[in-house]
Amino acid sequence: MEAMSVKTPRISEAVVRRLPIYLRYLQHLHDMNVKTVSSHELGQKLDMNPAQIRKDLAYFGEFGRKGIGYEVPYLIEKIKQILKLDRPISVALVGAGHLGIALSNYNRYKQETLSITAIFDADPAKVGMEIGGLRVKHADELEAEIIRQGIQMAIITVPASEAQNVCDRLVRSGVKAILNFAPVNLRVPPHVRLNHADLTTELQSLAYYLDESE
Amino acid sequence: MEAMSVKTPRISEAVVRRLPIYLRYLQHLHDMNVKTVSSHELGQKLDMNPAQIRKDLAYFGEFGRKGIGYEVPYLIEKIKQILKLDRPISVALVGAGHLGIALSNYNRYKQETLSITAIFDADPAKVGMEIGGLRVKHADELEAEIIRQGIQMAIITVPASEAQNVCDRLVRSGVKAILNFAPVNLRVPPHVRLNHADLTTELQSLAYYLDESE
Repeated sequence: MEAMSVKTPRISEAVVRRLPIYLRYLQHLHDMNVKTVSSHELGQKLDMNPAQIRKDLAYFGEFGRKGIGYEVPYLIEKIKQILKLDRPISVALVGAGHLGIALSNYNRYKQETLSITAIFDADPAKVGMEIGGLRVKHADELEAEIIRQGIQMAIITVPASEAQNVCDRLVRSGVKAILNFAPVNLRVPPHVRLNHADLTTELQSLAYYLDESE
Repeated sequence: MEAMSVKTPRISEAVVRRLPIYLRYLQHLHDMNVKTVSSHELGQKLDMNPAQIRKDLAYFGEFGRKGIGYEVPYLIEKIKQILKLDRPISVALVGAGHLGIALSNYNRYKQETLSITAIFDADPAKVGMEIGGLRVKHADELEAEIIRQGIQMAIITVPASEAQNVCDRLVRSGVKAILNFAPVNLRVPPHVRLNHADLTTELQSLAYYLDESE
């Protein structure tokens, strides 16, 4: 129940998106046995404004102390609570193509509390294939399996033409949060959270840093 | 030379990261034949603060007019100039595994000015394979080919254990901007821009939106 009490202040989407970035670096510091970190160090390492970081972390309470900074293990624990990463979360993956397989392997490697526990594909040739220890199920089983497992989060890696249909079926089965890799804008009802993972966006922002001369 | 004059004000990394997001939505509006858009509409659609959007777009000049908004085609053109997406950019991909293949296919589908023009892998079994119309080259050819093509941007999709070595070789060959998918922190000299594409981060921020009850 402790995790619920932490949630009380409604935090903005932008903050929610930055928390995993802080978490990743804090875990790196923790692995290196670093006990405390200042907002300036975080800012320098993450290429962000320290004032912004302090403001974001103020959601977690007043434990950043002048001249000492934040306690790394405590901050990790609190961010995990806020993000609900202090409990196991099952994720469904729809689309067992190259990207789907890459995500399954990637996910397994990281050993997070988030884990893919169901993989679906409409192609009979892929059904029954084993990926990261899971057998690919036929897309026809999607609703039944998601309801059976009580899955609330899903990743879409099907072709653009299939994505809206898959999305609608996920929503009808009780999925609350979707990460879409298909290059198409999807519509979801207001109670469902949809993030669009656009690999092109990352490359586009990098182009800015190329030499003028090219 | 026009693109150079636009660049004059040094813009922050955060703005550089948001521009492709604006661009994607503006291109969607353009496809729908929408001529103008207000910062409020943009904010609502992109789940961002309209004041932040107005501030970001002020880098492009004073063309957002009260009650009318921004001219879509003009804004697209200007953002492309700032991001240097008004010219073709060649990208090298190192690692022809599932993720590498997915990125090559994805990239080809989008038909952006960014295009993968060289693919490398150290596995002899993969060398010579054709992916998205390109023949996979042996990793030994990396330096020679990147220099020959004058490539300045690269994507790393090799295993974590190989990533730093590949990164060093890319930098020595003149690469200025790197997108790293390997789950490891890489070191680059100050003149090189490195972005870390962490697929887990997206999933982690989504977890926040799940029901408390799970």
